[in-house]
Amino acid sequence: MQIDPRPDRTLSSARPAPRITPCRCGRAPAQASQAILVPGATDALERTLAPRQGGFAPAVDPSSLQLIILPAGLIAVAFALFLARDVLRRDTGTKEMEAVAATIFEGAVAFIRRQYSTIGILAIVGAVGIAILISVFETANVADTSVFGPELGIRTGIAFLVGAACSMASGIIGMFISVKANVRTAAAARRSLVEAVQVAMRGGAVSGFLVVALSLLGVYLMFVAFGGLNANTVREAPFLIVGYGFGASFVALFAQLGGGIYTKAADVGSDLVGKVEKGIPEDDPRNAGVIADLVGDNVGDCAGRGADLFESTAAENIGAMILGVGVYFVAQKAGWANPEAWIFFPLVVRSFGLLSTIIAMFFVRGREDENPMNILNRGYWVTTILSVISLAFVTNVMMQTGNQTGANGIPTWIWFFGAGVVGLATSVAFVYITQYYTAGTFRPVKEIAEASKTGPATNIIIGTAVGYETTFVTAITIGIALFASHWLGAEAGLTDASGRNVGGIFGTAVATMGMLMTTAYILAMDTFGPITDNAGGIAEFSGAEAHAREITDRLDAVGNTTKALTKGYAIASASLAAFLLFNAYIDKVNLILGRQIAAGKEGVSLMTSVNLENVNVFIAALIASMLVYFFSSLAIRAVGKTAGAIIFEVRRQFREMPGIMTYEQKPDYARVVDITTRAALREMVAPGLVAVATPIAVGLLLGYEAVAGMLMVGTIAGVLLATVLNNGGGAWDNAKKYIESGHLKDDHGNVLGKGSDAHAAAVVGDTVGDPFKDTAGPSLHVLVKLLATITLVLAPLFIR
Amino acid sequence: MQIDPRPDRTLSSARPAPRITPCRCGRAPAQASQAILVPGATDALERTLAPRQGGFAPAVDPSSLQLIILPAGLIAVAFALFLARDVLRRDTGTKEMEAVAATIFEGAVAFIRRQYSTIGILAIVGAVGIAILISVFETANVADTSVFGPELGIRTGIAFLVGAACSMASGIIGMFISVKANVRTAAAARRSLVEAVQVAMRGGAVSGFLVVALSLLGVYLMFVAFGGLNANTVREAPFLIVGYGFGASFVALFAQLGGGIYTKAADVGSDLVGKVEKGIPEDDPRNAGVIADLVGDNVGDCAGRGADLFESTAAENIGAMILGVGVYFVAQKAGWANPEAWIFFPLVVRSFGLLSTIIAMFFVRGREDENPMNILNRGYWVTTILSVISLAFVTNVMMQTGNQTGANGIPTWIWFFGAGVVGLATSVAFVYITQYYTAGTFRPVKEIAEASKTGPATNIIIGTAVGYETTFVTAITIGIALFASHWLGAEAGLTDASGRNVGGIFGTAVATMGMLMTTAYILAMDTFGPITDNAGGIAEFSGAEAHAREITDRLDAVGNTTKALTKGYAIASASLAAFLLFNAYIDKVNLILGRQIAAGKEGVSLMTSVNLENVNVFIAALIASMLVYFFSSLAIRAVGKTAGAIIFEVRRQFREMPGIMTYEQKPDYARVVDITTRAALREMVAPGLVAVATPIAVGLLLGYEAVAGMLMVGTIAGVLLATVLNNGGGAWDNAKKYIESGHLKDDHGNVLGKGSDAHAAAVVGDTVGDPFKDTAGPSLHVLVKLLATITLVLAPLFIR
Repeated sequence: MQIDPRPDRTLSSARPAPRITPCRCGRAPAQASQAILVPGATDALERTLAPRQGGFAPAVDPSSLQLIILPAGLIAVAFALFLARDVLRRDTGTKEMEAVAATIFEGAVAFIRRQYSTIGILAIVGAVGIAILISVFETANVADTSVFGPELGIRTGIAFLVGAACSMASGIIGMFISVKANVRTAAAARRSLVEAVQVAMRGGAVSGFLVVALSLLGVYLMFVAFGGLNANTVREAPFLIVGYGFGASFVALFAQLGGGIYTKAADVGSDLVGKVEKGIPEDDPRNAGVIADLVGDNVGDCAGRGADLFESTAAENIGAMILGVGVYFVAQKAGWANPEAWIFFPLVVRSFGLLSTIIAMFFVRGREDENPMNILNRGYWVTTILSVISLAFVTNVMMQTGNQTGANGIPTWIWFFGAGVVGLATSVAFVYITQYYTAGTFRPVKEIAEASKTGPATNIIIGTAVGYETTFVTAITIGIALFASHWLGAEAGLTDASGRNVGGIFGTAVATMGMLMTTAYILAMDTFGPITDNAGGIAEFSGAEAHAREITDRLDAVGNTTKALTKGYAIASASLAAFLLFNAYIDKVNLILGRQIAAGKEGVSLMTSVNLENVNVFIAALIASMLVYFFSSLAIRAVGKTAGAIIFEVRRQFREMPGIMTYEQKPDYARVVDITTRAALREMVAPGLVAVATPIAVGLLLGYEAVAGMLMVGTIAGVLLATVLNNGGGAWDNAKKYIESGHLKDDHGNVLGKGSDAHAAAVVGDTVGDPFKDTAGPSLHVLVKLLATITLVLAPLFIR
Repeated sequence: MQIDPRPDRTLSSARPAPRITPCRCGRAPAQASQAILVPGATDALERTLAPRQGGFAPAVDPSSLQLIILPAGLIAVAFALFLARDVLRRDTGTKEMEAVAATIFEGAVAFIRRQYSTIGILAIVGAVGIAILISVFETANVADTSVFGPELGIRTGIAFLVGAACSMASGIIGMFISVKANVRTAAAARRSLVEAVQVAMRGGAVSGFLVVALSLLGVYLMFVAFGGLNANTVREAPFLIVGYGFGASFVALFAQLGGGIYTKAADVGSDLVGKVEKGIPEDDPRNAGVIADLVGDNVGDCAGRGADLFESTAAENIGAMILGVGVYFVAQKAGWANPEAWIFFPLVVRSFGLLSTIIAMFFVRGREDENPMNILNRGYWVTTILSVISLAFVTNVMMQTGNQTGANGIPTWIWFFGAGVVGLATSVAFVYITQYYTAGTFRPVKEIAEASKTGPATNIIIGTAVGYETTFVTAITIGIALFASHWLGAEAGLTDASGRNVGGIFGTAVATMGMLMTTAYILAMDTFGPITDNAGGIAEFSGAEAHAREITDRLDAVGNTTKALTKGYAIASASLAAFLLFNAYIDKVNLILGRQIAAGKEGVSLMTSVNLENVNVFIAALIASMLVYFFSSLAIRAVGKTAGAIIFEVRRQFREMPGIMTYEQKPDYARVVDITTRAALREMVAPGLVAVATPIAVGLLLGYEAVAGMLMVGTIAGVLLATVLNNGGGAWDNAKKYIESGHLKDDHGNVLGKGSDAHAAAVVGDTVGDPFKDTAGPSLHVLVKLLATITLVLAPLFIR
C-alpha cells in the first residue's frame, strides 16, 4: 500500500522551493511567501541528507500535487458527459415503454421546475438575509478574517448563492439523466442482465461524478477566488467559503424534504388503494397514483440524494480545510516545506478518489447468470483498493514534516494514512452492517417476517425493536472509528504553539476524507436504485416480456440494497464529519474571540471547552435532541397527510370512473401528479424553516458555547434517529419481500406468501417504513450537516 | 403565599444557638460544632436588629424544622395504614367477583414472589459486588470521605441492600393493597360513583404514601446512621448514602422491566386473539389470557411504578443533599446560622409535601353526576396549593443568610422559593401537556383517529408523528424550567470560596424538590389507574350489573388519563433531577480529585467542565444516546416475543378446547399465567444487565469525564425517547377509545364505531403503543436515574 519509488527522492525533495513559488505566490507579495518558504526548503534539503529518513521521503513534489485538483474535477465532469452520452444513445425500447417514460419525464420535470423555483426563491431570500446579517454583525471587532462588514457579507452571500446553484444543478442534472436511463434500462433488460446493470449503473454514475466533481470544483474555485493561492490569505480563505457549504446545505434540505415527501406520499397513497384495497399489482396502469409513484422515485431518491451528498462533500471539504489551517500554522512554525499542503490536502484526496472511481467504472462487468450485486460490488472493491493506494501516495507526498516524526519514530504521514484507512474501513463496515440488518438472509428481517404471522401489530412492534437495535452496532462502529482515527492522529506528533496536540482532530478529518473517497461510486450505486425501480415500473406498466420483467425485478431487489447501503454510508460520514465541523466551528469562534482579546476587549477568553455542566449548553443539547424528533415528526406527518389526499383522489377515480378496472377508461394520472406536487411543496416549508430557525434562535438566546453543544448533541441524536428510521424502514421493506418470495412458512410447512394474512401484515410494516426510510431519515442527514454549516456561517452573531 | 407571622420574629431569631446545639451536636465533639455555630448565632442576632430585614425573618427556629422529618414520615405511614384498613374492611361484592379477585390475587402473588426472589438474588450479588469493588478501589487516596476501603465498601453494600429492601417493600405492599382494592372498587361501583372513586383513590394512596414515606425515612435513617446529626460528619454523610439510591434504582429497574413485560405481553397477547381474531370483548372469561392480563395490571403498573417513584424520590433526595453540602460550606464560611439546614432542606420539604397530601386526601369528594376526573383534580389542586404555602414557610425558615441578600436586595429565600414554585408550576404544566396529547378532546388524538380511516399503516404513521411531536413542548417546558430555576438560584447570592456562584445549581435542586412535593398524590392517582382497570375487568368477568359496569368504564377512562399524567410527571422530574444528580457526581469526583491534589499527586486537576470537544466525552455521549434505543429495543422485543408465546397458547386452547366459545369448557388460565411469568422473568435480565454494565464499561474505558457526558446526554436522550413512547402510546390508546365512543364519522356523517375498518386499524395502533407506553417508556425513567446513582457510587473506579 505504500508507494515508495526511492530513486526519485533526492531529485524531487531537493528542489521544492522553485517549483512551489510560481503556483502559490502567483498573486502574493513576494517577500511574505519567501519568508515562509525558505525554512521549509532548507529543511527539505536537510531531510534529504539525513540518513534515518530513508524510505519515507516523498516521490513527488508536494506542491505539484495541488495542481491535480482542477484537472481531476474536469476529467470527472468529462467522464460524466461521456457516460451520459453512452446512456442517451442507447435503445429506448418499445413504443409503450417510450410513452410511459415520456409521461414520467413530464411529471418529473414539472415537479422539479416548481420545486426548484420555490427553492431558488428561498435561496435568494436566504442569501440576502445572510449578507445583511453578516454586514451588520460581523464588523471589524468580531470578524474572523481581514475581510469584514459589508464586503464579507457580500462575499458570503455570493458563496451561498454559488453553493446553492451548484447543488441545484447537481440535483437537476442527476434527475434528468436518471429519468432518461430508466427506460433504457428497461429496454436493455429485454436483451441482457449485464447490459441492464451497466446502463443503470452508468446512469447513476453520471449523478455520482457530477455531484462530487461539481462540489470539488466549486469549493476549489471559491477558495481560489477568495485568495487560496496567495500565501498571505491562504489561511483565511477556508473561512470565507463556508457560505458555499451553507448554500449547498440549504438547497439540499429543501430538495430532500420536498422530494422525499413527494416520493413516499405517492408510494404510500397508490399502494394503499391499489395493492391493499383493490388487490391489483404495484405499478398497474389502472392505478391513478402509479405515475406519481414513478415520478417520485426520480425526484425524491435521485434529485434529493444527489443534493444531500453534494452538500456532504462540500461541507466536509470546507471543514477539513479549516482544520488544515490549524496544522498550517504548526507547519509554518516548524518550517516544514509547503505548509499549504495541509489546507489543500482534502481537495487532493478527493481528486484521487474521483480518479479511482473512474477506473473502477470499467470493472462493472460480469456474467449473465451472476448475482447483479456481485457486479456492483466488484466496482466498489476496486474503488476502495485504489483509494487506499492513492491515499498512501497522497499522505506520503503532502504530509512531510521535516526531521520531525510521530510517536515511536514512525513518520507523521503513516499515522495519518492509518487514520484515512480507518475511514475507508468504516465505510466498508457500514456496507456490511446495513446488509445484515436489511437483507432477507439474516436474523432481523426474518424475525419481522415471523412476527407478521400474528398480525400487523406484532410486525410493527418487532420492526420497531429491530430499528432501535440497529443503533447499537452503528454507535459502536462510529465510536471505534472516532477513537482510532483520533488516536492515530494524536500520535502523529503535531503540536501547536501552546503545546496543544492538534493531530487528533486532524486524524478524524483524514478518516472522513478517506471515507469520502468512494462517494462517487456509492452515489452511483444509490441512483442505480431508483433507475432500476423505475425500469421495473416501466416494464410492468408497458406490459413488457416476462423475461425482461424478471431481470428488472432482480435489479430492483439489488437496488433496494444499494439504496440502504448509501444511507448507512451517509450516516457514518455525517458522524465523523460532525466532529470535524464542530471543531471547525470552535476554531472560527476562537479566531473571533482572539481578535477581540487582541483588541483589548474586557472579560473575553478563548473557548476551551463545550461544557455540558453549563445550563445553557445543557438546554441547547436538550433542544437539539428534540429538534431531530420534531423535524422528523413534521416530515412523517407531511407524508401521511399527502398520502391521505392521494388515497381519497385515487378512490374517487375508481368510484366515479368504473371503466378503469376494466381498462376501458384511462385514469387521470395528471391530477394525482398535480395534487402530490402541490402538497409536497407546501409541506416541505415548515420542517425546512424549523431546521434553519432553531440553531439561529438557540445561538441568539443562549450564546456560542450553547450552539456548539447543540451541534454535537444534535448530530448524535440525528444520526441515531436516522439509523433507526432508515434501517427499520429497510427491514420492514425486505420482510415483505421475504414473504413475497415464499420464504415464510406456517407450523405445518405451508408457504405463507402473497395474499396471506402475514403478507397483509408485512405490507402494513412496509408502508409505515416508507416515510421513515425515504423521507425523514435522509432529511435528517441533511439537517445534521445544515446545523454545522449554518452555525459556521453565523458564528459572529452568537458572540456578544 | 408568604407566611410571615411578624410577632414571633424577634423571639425566634434571637436565640438560635441554644436550641440548635442539642439537636445537632448530640454526638459531635463539642468544640467543632461550637466553632461553626458561634458566628452564625452572632449574625442571627445582628440580623434581628438590622432594620431592613423586616418581614422576612423566620417565624420558627430553623433547626427545629429538621425535627419534623421523622414524625412526618411516621404520620404518613400511619395514614397509609389507616387508608389500607379503610379499604380492606369494605364490601367485597358478589361471590363471582370474589372468585375472580382471588384468582387475580393468586396469579399476582405467584409472579411477585418469583420476580422478587430473582431480584433479591440479583440485589445480593450486586451489593457484594459493589462492596468488593469499593473496598478494593476506593482506597484512602481516592476516597471522597474520611471513610474508605473495606469500611466504606461494607457501608455502601449495606446502604445498597437497605435501599433495595425498601424499594422491594414499597412495590410489594403497593401491589398487595391494589389487588385488594380492585374488587372493592367493583363492589362499590354497584352503589355509587363517588364511593368507587374513593375506594380506588385510597387504595392508590396507600402505595403513594408508603413509597414516599419509606423513601424519606430510609434516606433520613441512613443519613443519621452514617453521621448526619454530627456536625463533623454531616457534610460527609450524603456521600455515604448514595449506595441507598443505587440499591433502590437497581430494584426499580428490574421491577419495572419484569412487571412491564408481563403486563403488556399479557395485554397484547390476549387482545390480539380475543378482541381481534375471535371478536369477543376485552376481559371476556372465554379468553384464556384474560387473568394474566388482569394480573399484569397489578404487577406492572402498580408494583413497577411504585418502585420507579420510590427510587426517584430517594435518588433526588440524596442528590439534593449532596448539592446542599456545597451550600453548607458557603453558609459555614459566611457564618450563617445553622448551615446544616441546607443539607436537611430536601428532606424537610418532602415532609411538608407529605403532610400537604394527607390533608388533600380529605378533599377527594364530589357529586355522583360529576366527571370523576374533577374529583381527583380537586385533591391535586389542594396538594399543590398547600405545597406552595408550606414551601414558602420552609424556605423562609431554613434559608436564612444573615445580612446577606440576593440580587436587588431581595432575600435569598425568596429567590429559592421562586425556584421551588417553578418546579411546582412545571408539574402542573406537564399535567396539561400530557392531557392535550393523550386525551380525545384535542387535535393529536383526533388526527390519529382520522388517519385510521385509511387503515393501520396511516394510523401508525400519524401516531408516530404525534409521538415525535410531543418532544417539542416537553423539551421547551423543561428548558424554561431549568433556565428559570437556575437563574433564580443564581440571583440568590451564594458564592463559594473560589467566587463561583453555586446558587444556580441549587436553584434547579429546589425546583426538583418543589415538583416532588406532590409525588404521593400523583402516585395515588397513578395507582388509581390499574385499580379501576382491574375493577372494570372484574365487573365484566363476573357479569356484574350494567350500571356498575358503566361506572367502572367511566373510572377506567379516567384511570388511563391519570396513568399518562404520572408518566409526564416522572419525565419532568427525571429531567430536572438529572441536572442535580449530574452536579452531585461532579462534586463527588472533585472531592476525590481534591484529595489527590492535597496528597501531592502529579498531573491531577479538578474537573471544571464536561467538555464535549473531548473525543472520549463525545463517544460516551454517542453510546449513551444509543443505550436508550438499545435498551428500549430489548424491552419492546421482550413484549413482542412473550406476547407471541401467549397468542399461540390462547389460540391452541380455542382450537383444542372447542367448548370454550360456548361456555361449556373453562380455559386453562393458570397455564397462560405461568407462561407469562416465566417469559417475563427471563426477558427482564438482558435489558437490566445492559443498563447496569454500560455505564461501568464506559467509565472504565473512557474515564470519569466521559461518564459525566454519558450521564447528561443519556438523560436527554432517555427523557425524550420516553416522551415519544409514553405519549405516542397514550394517544394511540385514546384514538381507539375515541372511535369506540362513536366520535369518528365518515364523509356522509355515518359513525365509524366498533367493528368498522377504522376501529380495527386503531386497535393495531393501540396494541403497538402498549409496550411503548407501559414497558419501554417507564423503564427508561428508571434507566435515566440508574445511570446517575450507579456513577455516583462507582465514581472512584473511573479515576486513575
